Amino acid sequence: MSLSLFRLFFLLLCFLPLAFSEDSAPSSDASLPRPLIIEYPQPSKAVDEELRLRCTSWRFAAETNNLSPWKTIPQECAEYVKVYMTGEGYSLDLQRVSEEAGFYAKSVELSGDGKDAWIFDIDETLLSNLPYYANHLFGLEVFDHPEFDKWVERASAPAIPPSLRLYEQVLQLGFKVFLLTGRTEKHRGVTVENLINAGFQNWDKLILRSSEDYVKLATEYKSEKRDEMVKEGYRILGNSGDQWSDLLGSAMSARSFKLPNPMYYIS
Amino acid sequence: MSLSLFRLFFLLLCFLPLAFSEDSAPSSDASLPRPLIIEYPQPSKAVDEELRLRCTSWRFAAETNNLSPWKTIPQECAEYVKVYMTGEGYSLDLQRVSEEAGFYAKSVELSGDGKDAWIFDIDETLLSNLPYYANHLFGLEVFDHPEFDKWVERASAPAIPPSLRLYEQVLQLGFKVFLLTGRTEKHRGVTVENLINAGFQNWDKLILRSSEDYVKLATEYKSEKRDEMVKEGYRILGNSGDQWSDLLGSAMSARSFKLPNPMYYIS
Repeated sequence: MSLSLFRLFFLLLCFLPLAFSEDSAPSSDASLPRPLIIEYPQPSKAVDEELRLRCTSWRFAAETNNLSPWKTIPQECAEYVKVYMTGEGYSLDLQRVSEEAGFYAKSVELSGDGKDAWIFDIDETLLSNLPYYANHLFGLEVFDHPEFDKWVERASAPAIPPSLRLYEQVLQLGFKVFLLTGRTEKHRGVTVENLINAGFQNWDKLILRSSEDYVKLATEYKSEKRDEMVKEGYRILGNSGDQWSDLLGSAMSARSFKLPNPMYYIS
Repeated sequence: MSLSLFRLFFLLLCFLPLAFSEDSAPSSDASLPRPLIIEYPQPSKAVDEELRLRCTSWRFAAETNNLSPWKTIPQECAEYVKVYMTGEGYSLDLQRVSEEAGFYAKSVELSGDGKDAWIFDIDETLLSNLPYYANHLFGLEVFDHPEFDKWVERASAPAIPPSLRLYEQVLQLGFKVFLLTGRTEKHRGVTVENLINAGFQNWDKLILRSSEDYVKLATEYKSEKRDEMVKEGYRILGNSGDQWSDLLGSAMSARSFKLPNPMYYIS
């Protein structure tokens, strides 16, 4: 969809000079369209390039966990994030992280005692909320909990395709799969429904926040859940998540895979 | 640069319809100079943009620690890495990470008992080896230990200016500063000389690898040294490094700051 929008916009811009050229063309030459080369205001391009650099720098700071907790994306990077999320950038990054995780998963020698575990987060890791965020300015709006809950309850978030492939691959290799999400127990039903609809199955355990976890930061809650897995004898060999709070803390995985997400931050 | 590429590509596409319209134009109009449009080889431009996306994706994967240990940058990204390192990109990223670290440092309430610590790595964190890597294809060459040692022994690596500012800021705030480097004890002299020449002073301790540390991975060696600091009662509140092996492991800092480095990887 974004591609055809881009193409439309593109064609429109291409035709603009032709439209204006009619006005200034001497009537004698009107038979041949004059090649209008004065095109597009150059200074804005320089600004654009400068802005692209600044926003790329912001994205890297966000993705490497260098930023303090943030509530919205920078205003100036709204268009940048939109282009990234709806264009090839996000898609390429998702593919690469799953490929790298897949190479690693294949390289691990499993013990075969059923205690080799891989953890997946859900939102922006297995399931994509991009349809929701496309309607909410890709992170420029402050997170609206009730609105997002409504979206979650529709159970219609699509799979992130490379994540689905990785998911199936690690299952096939013999890992136990744990889904560890910040979603709450009240959403267990819709979450299972959504996961199944999107093609995910055969997970070992789906762990959601219970009421006593509400006050905890994600890092704390997820660390506790990983601690429990380790106590139960699991070896956490892989962990996929779009937030550093999925990956850091105690009982960290042997390898962690950070999926891209420049739209929101969870502590 | 990519912007002007985009502009070129754009103009080219805009003129394409005109080019084709010529075929059907009556020959009597040949008196008017024909707009010569096909000026730039189109495929390479499109390839460039595609390549920029792929290499940005590779850099994201490298900087978020998603890649398996790697020995050289991808051949296809040689030019991309060079442009990033010598252009505004690297410089902007360095500035941002030090700014973020500075905001955090100021926000921390220090105990005042002299046990609040900030750790800095040295190479590509306080000192820049860019003059060396500029002569060694910015990471496209496999690391040449003897050659690099010669460079280290010249003690002429410049400071990374935003890191020097951060360094002075955290000292002034009252942090104890520890320098924790993968360099070996035999380079203590030249390292101190280089640091002083570049403007660094008043560190509390400079920790280098002793002979028993040679066999250890950086993550292991640096974790052990942090464990010792904690045993001595230090609270590690900040840690700046260009490698994840500076930051991950045991006794991790309350906040870690990952400086950019797409040129090499240390386990």
